[in-house]
Amino acid sequence: MAIRVFVTGGTFDKEYDEVHGALFFKDTHLPEMLRLGRCRLDVSVRTLMMVDSLDMTDEDRATVVDHCRRCEETHVVVTHGTDTMVRTAEALATQVTGKTIVLTGAMIPFAFGSSDGLFNLGSALSFVQVLPAGVYIAMNGRWFAWNDVRKNRDTGVFEART
Amino acid sequence: MAIRVFVTGGTFDKEYDEVHGALFFKDTHLPEMLRLGRCRLDVSVRTLMMVDSLDMTDEDRATVVDHCRRCEETHVVVTHGTDTMVRTAEALATQVTGKTIVLTGAMIPFAFGSSDGLFNLGSALSFVQVLPAGVYIAMNGRWFAWNDVRKNRDTGVFEART
Amino acid sequence: MAIRVFVTGGTFDKEYDEVHGALFFKDTHLPEMLRLGRCRLDVSVRTLMMVDSLDMTDEDRATVVDHCRRCEETHVVVTHGTDTMVRTAEALATQVTGKTIVLTGAMIPFAFGSSDGLFNLGSALSFVQVLPAGVYIAMNGRWFAWNDVRKNRDTGVFEART
Amino acid sequence: MAIRVFVTGGTFDKEYDEVHGALFFKDTHLPEMLRLGRCRLDVSVRTLMMVDSLDMTDEDRATVVDHCRRCEETHVVVTHGTDTMVRTAEALATQVTGKTIVLTGAMIPFAFGSSDGLFNLGSALSFVQVLPAGVYIAMNGRWFAWNDVRKNRDTGVFEART
Repeated sequence: MAIRVFVTGGTFDKEYDEVHGALFFKDTHLPEMLRLGRCRLDVSVRTLMMVDSLDMTDEDRATVVDHCRRCEETHVVVTHGTDTMVRTAEALATQVTGKTIVLTGAMIPFAFGSSDGLFNLGSALSFVQVLPAGVYIAMNGRWFAWNDVRKNRDTGVFEART
Repeated sequence: MAIRVFVTGGTFDKEYDEVHGALFFKDTHLPEMLRLGRCRLDVSVRTLMMVDSLDMTDEDRATVVDHCRRCEETHVVVTHGTDTMVRTAEALATQVTGKTIVLTGAMIPFAFGSSDGLFNLGSALSFVQVLPAGVYIAMNGRWFAWNDVRKNRDTGVFEART
Repeated sequence: MAIRVFVTGGTFDKEYDEVHGALFFKDTHLPEMLRLGRCRLDVSVRTLMMVDSLDMTDEDRATVVDHCRRCEETHVVVTHGTDTMVRTAEALATQVTGKTIVLTGAMIPFAFGSSDGLFNLGSALSFVQVLPAGVYIAMNGRWFAWNDVRKNRDTGVFEART
Repeated sequence: MAIRVFVTGGTFDKEYDEVHGALFFKDTHLPEMLRLGRCRLDVSVRTLMMVDSLDMTDEDRATVVDHCRRCEETHVVVTHGTDTMVRTAEALATQVTGKTIVLTGAMIPFAFGSSDGLFNLGSALSFVQVLPAGVYIAMNGRWFAWNDVRKNRDTGVFEART
């Protein structure tokens, strides 16, 4: 089964700029993470953008939707900042059909020794293989349908709305 | 959904004895891994044994089968050394019914900065939630039915037999 | 030989707040770093403040000077943000005599898998044992007298003025 | 000041063979460690051998002595397994004069997320710059003259004989 991974940035891929002491984006760590995880799936990674999800514009979101719709693969993972992940899931759900799309992210940058990024990546790549067509969020080992999930702003944890 | 994790040892949980320069087992790292992965599943961890899977006896294997059969949870993950994981999967498949059981492991000890352990744990905990009743192996981001998998001894990679 | 370590914050001890995605200070990592380094020196650690060195006031600096002057130990390491480390070294040099004081820091927070913090700590604790009384900065494996050092703002590297 | 680093193997540079589950040597991690430590010293690294120090023969030891004697640099760090480090120090002390030579090692392989290796490397590179000509061992943040040190086999810690 061919799986497409679209990278959009988010905490997953943030770096620490040691000269200025600030966080920034450079390249995605996805290929390195797949290698470290000894992943043997047929995965193609493509970076669509490298943005903080709070800075993601409607145009950015349209780009994500467009790529998910047009890619050949019917199983898609999208790495995404957690703050607006639910909004992008909603955009995808209303505009893409017949595909299993799983959004995932991280609370800690991979470059900072993140453990949740790798855990979530393993989780998202697994859910995308077995869940039926639809749009889902995979975080904290759990999966949620796009219309039954919210991020708890106080704890950073994703939870069911219902 | 309540998930039971049974720990049996394997590379996952090996430690480095810095005084003697040898590998050994102490306690499982599963709780720490779940914490680092920010896992929010309802998971209960129980250590059944701490052995290299090459040293796993028929009696040990019977213990694993027994616990998988008798535990209340119908979704079970077993952490296991990779060398005889397929054999234990077979024992489980012939003796336990009506449960989804996923065996997983690691090529690198978690204590050595393993990345595949955390990736595989995220993967196994995801597959166990959505795969139908049966016995599976989750390694390298992939899942295999118990009777269609072998470990390639040269590469350390799990692959379909067919 | 008794060595005193005074902690003032700086990049060394910065943490990543995973809920807000920002850097902040909590507790010092010095004890953990000494443990990981298997340090067997007679070291007493005391936190004086936890600040970014750009936010260090004259009053803060006076506190550092005061503690270095009054502590019983004649060998002192000060962990410090790199941006104003030279200024604090100058304050110490003009107000404390008869002691070997080594300031050190890090370019990457220890919590982000910093390697330079541990390297610099090993370095500073070594220089402080063998350099004659005076005030020094230990960074990048090198040592500098307090009045012959500057931080290169473009590269983040400390270098001799002369 | 030009510093020569001679690599001889030891725990420092051990790797984990994930296919066979055993420890082995491949290449030295010294260049990577120097890079992570943001080391800006004028250091030249040369690998003389890659052996467990228990397997180091008299011939191997003669090779180390020979290189330390003949190299242009007067400041030399030797990375070495801890088990026979004292013996090599003795060989160096009786056959090389006019140079500052510091032996160091690690209790945990760098590849296993070692923290003591990096701490010890920072320490050894610092001591070698300031100690007078002679042969020393730098471990656990401390330095010892070659003829006043032993490794405590029970704890793995180096300590003064006197």
